[in-house]
Amino acid sequence: MQSTGFFRPSEQAIIRIRRALAFFALVVIGAMGMRLSGWAARPGEELFVQGVPGKLAACASCHGPHGEGGGQGAYPRIAGQPAAYLEAQLKAFRDGGRSNPLMSPMVAALSDEDIAAVAAFLEREHPPFAAAPNADQSRLTRGQSLVALGRWDLGVPACTSCHGSALQGVAPAIPALAGQSSQYLSTQLYAYKSGERPAGPLALMGRIAHGMSSEDIGHAALYIASLPSGASPQIPRPAAPEAYIAKAQAPDTFVPPPEAAIPDGPYGELVRLGQSIFEDTPKYGAPYAGNTLSCRNCHLDRGRDPKSSPMWAAYVHYPEYRKKDGLVNTIQMRIQGCFRYSQNGTVPEADSRELTALVTYFYWMASGLPVGVKPRAAGYPKLDAPKEPPSPERGAKVYASSCAMCHGEDGLGRSGGAQQVFPPLWGPQSFNWGAGMHQVDRAAGFIKTSMPFGAGGTLTDQQAWDVAAYVNSRPRPPDPRFTESIEKTRELYHADHEYDYYGREVDGLVLGAPGPVEGRGKGR
Amino acid sequence: MQSTGFFRPSEQAIIRIRRALAFFALVVIGAMGMRLSGWAARPGEELFVQGVPGKLAACASCHGPHGEGGGQGAYPRIAGQPAAYLEAQLKAFRDGGRSNPLMSPMVAALSDEDIAAVAAFLEREHPPFAAAPNADQSRLTRGQSLVALGRWDLGVPACTSCHGSALQGVAPAIPALAGQSSQYLSTQLYAYKSGERPAGPLALMGRIAHGMSSEDIGHAALYIASLPSGASPQIPRPAAPEAYIAKAQAPDTFVPPPEAAIPDGPYGELVRLGQSIFEDTPKYGAPYAGNTLSCRNCHLDRGRDPKSSPMWAAYVHYPEYRKKDGLVNTIQMRIQGCFRYSQNGTVPEADSRELTALVTYFYWMASGLPVGVKPRAAGYPKLDAPKEPPSPERGAKVYASSCAMCHGEDGLGRSGGAQQVFPPLWGPQSFNWGAGMHQVDRAAGFIKTSMPFGAGGTLTDQQAWDVAAYVNSRPRPPDPRFTESIEKTRELYHADHEYDYYGREVDGLVLGAPGPVEGRGKGR
Repeated sequence: MQSTGFFRPSEQAIIRIRRALAFFALVVIGAMGMRLSGWAARPGEELFVQGVPGKLAACASCHGPHGEGGGQGAYPRIAGQPAAYLEAQLKAFRDGGRSNPLMSPMVAALSDEDIAAVAAFLEREHPPFAAAPNADQSRLTRGQSLVALGRWDLGVPACTSCHGSALQGVAPAIPALAGQSSQYLSTQLYAYKSGERPAGPLALMGRIAHGMSSEDIGHAALYIASLPSGASPQIPRPAAPEAYIAKAQAPDTFVPPPEAAIPDGPYGELVRLGQSIFEDTPKYGAPYAGNTLSCRNCHLDRGRDPKSSPMWAAYVHYPEYRKKDGLVNTIQMRIQGCFRYSQNGTVPEADSRELTALVTYFYWMASGLPVGVKPRAAGYPKLDAPKEPPSPERGAKVYASSCAMCHGEDGLGRSGGAQQVFPPLWGPQSFNWGAGMHQVDRAAGFIKTSMPFGAGGTLTDQQAWDVAAYVNSRPRPPDPRFTESIEKTRELYHADHEYDYYGREVDGLVLGAPGPVEGRGKGR
Repeated sequence: MQSTGFFRPSEQAIIRIRRALAFFALVVIGAMGMRLSGWAARPGEELFVQGVPGKLAACASCHGPHGEGGGQGAYPRIAGQPAAYLEAQLKAFRDGGRSNPLMSPMVAALSDEDIAAVAAFLEREHPPFAAAPNADQSRLTRGQSLVALGRWDLGVPACTSCHGSALQGVAPAIPALAGQSSQYLSTQLYAYKSGERPAGPLALMGRIAHGMSSEDIGHAALYIASLPSGASPQIPRPAAPEAYIAKAQAPDTFVPPPEAAIPDGPYGELVRLGQSIFEDTPKYGAPYAGNTLSCRNCHLDRGRDPKSSPMWAAYVHYPEYRKKDGLVNTIQMRIQGCFRYSQNGTVPEADSRELTALVTYFYWMASGLPVGVKPRAAGYPKLDAPKEPPSPERGAKVYASSCAMCHGEDGLGRSGGAQQVFPPLWGPQSFNWGAGMHQVDRAAGFIKTSMPFGAGGTLTDQQAWDVAAYVNSRPRPPDPRFTESIEKTRELYHADHEYDYYGREVDGLVLGAPGPVEGRGKGR
């Protein structure tokens, strides 16, 4: 049956009446909540708590006196959210980008200044979380897996990848999930999934919710709501590991063993340590970490994603001769290269516990993959040559619209609390001029298939080439192989690649020249 | 048709007449060869060159003035052969163990002393080799492969394994092949194959020739005859490597890539270096070698043989937790263990060129084998528990009859020239008390399936247990993990195995006690 909504004016009338009633109720509740004591006027606070006659908003009536949420979870927690996120949502409600029978009329009369004031007030509020409701443990565990690991086969990254390791949100655009009720979270995911709520920046949440089943949504929402204040979702560890027997698999349809198959005991512990180092190199690989990047930043889904040089594919084609150092590289030597260049760090000894843990993690991931048969997934996808030579100028525009939200206009990445959530793409905390990713072709292949994170494949090939050229024509830490001069170093190590900005002059600066690299962080 | 030889006296008569004629001819030739100058009588020389009337032998008539062989290759080179081998052959001709129409009557009248004198004289003669006849290069290459590598799938070990790296022979029982004509070599191999020549000690040559086709025999004989004096057969290296594409294989029917598939370039070179270290550890792994053993001594067919802990099987199941050191071992760490214990040597750094070469060789051998799926061939075969507890006393007898020919009555192995051909099983140049092979069960499994070399499977299970007990109740270098006392060390590292002689008293000596280990060589 086709919808015949166009011929039912009576329904629309009903909605209007409902909205009016709700509005009236809220105004009454708001008025009852007014404090009689004088205001120690913080900007936005009065508007938030009391509302202002003629402007009407009295947010605290529903969202709680400190924005902690209310109505048994019907009204979301809005305290501690990035101000820019709140502003964007309030303007969307006001201007029609989002529609909600309660919110839209409530904010209709607010000026941009009012909105900015409320948002700025709320960003600094940190009321305690409500106690989590009881929930079935098996549903929580399944939710935990989604939140901490995602389901890349369905295009669902871990929630923590963007919302931060404690789901604390990342200014400016990414809201905190921590402290939200499961009811609110699942409602929003459904709204994203159905298209009722706009898909969000770069349509990311629309895509992600689309990949989630109703069960997934329910489990993830329950789990997030169960977290106490400040808790980080951890990778779930089953009471007893899944019985898993590695079997031979074809290289081009390979699927690594499931997370739950990591066994107990010293071997499994080392696999887990390797996974932790891969996931948070500055923390777990601290003695060797030279910047705030982690292995997973370039090898998505913690090295499992077949589109971003998966570690299972690497494991089976080393030892291999590498022109880069003129040596046959063991897998250990290959990883040492990542520490030296991509990590701009200190090379771990071949038999250090950290390097052994990484090798063991890769080995475990490769279970069932034939030795010495290079899977098609090995390395990064190769793009066809660009139609137009890559242009940093065009790339800057792509960057501004598609990358800056997460990586920052300054390319320095973004943090949630102390933790680096989105990696720096240039500047002192990024990979150095020796890393593979500084080559424009390599970066373009990666960007095309994997960026924006969670929305890979949405840029055109030319856009990927251009933005790769932009990113790789910015300053970054020096090439550790520096010999004699920039010219000599370029000749020795950078002459092979058509698009390699090392030693070129951009904006009056010779790229790769010694000296401190601008931006936050120590530089090396 | 059945043989009816019993009813053909006329044939036997013909043979007798032929022998008599041949004998007569030889005496005439021998007399013509007599020197008129006086003898600087070296024992056996006169008999060899002139013959002695009434005793009749005048070996030089056919075998050349210095035993270099003659008759266009019809008469073998007998110079430089181990005296004991020559004695055994001469006695066999005399007493009927071997039969030859020329040789048998020639030596019929020789006493044991005559034979010993001729043999001792010949052992010290080293006349130059005859020039090798021209031969087709492709046949030589195929022969080279057989001689230097063998064909283990057909039960044919490399000729060099027993006859020495330059085929120089190994006293007492194993003749030199170097300098023989292709005609003689192929005749003997056919004779072994048909049973016309007795199968030799432990029936080894009978078995080996049985595995060789007529073509194999022809190629091997041609190649050996082509070698100049002192040359060692090298592993053949094809002009262009065989086009080989590694494909996934099932773990339990795995076949490593063929030798000819080792590619050119730095990767192939490292594979070859690994292979060389594996084959001759004291030479190619010199900085780390602590005794005269090589990896191939315990891992036959250069680590390929599925019955003696093949290296391809090992490669795919490391990293793995090992109770021995309480650590997850990478393949590098596992190999380091071999250097520490089996090699009684110095542990190579995890990223040393030698260790990397071995890992690369193993990786290459494992091409197509799935990661993390332990092949049934991994490790050494396990024997059922022995019916009788293993007895070193019974084992000593098995050893004397089945092992001493190659490994020596003193267990110290045997050399051909400077090179260790058969490995020492105890004493200062053997594996130490920390090596896996010192465990009687491990050794018994290996011995049962792989020993005597080239005749695996011929001992009973009980014999294998007994001889393993005998070998492993002899003195050997100390356990490098020695802590406090023999008792303490036994408690820490030797308590788990039912049959482990460490710390036990045998023949009045406490095994494992510090102090020099008797036998040749330095000890450690």
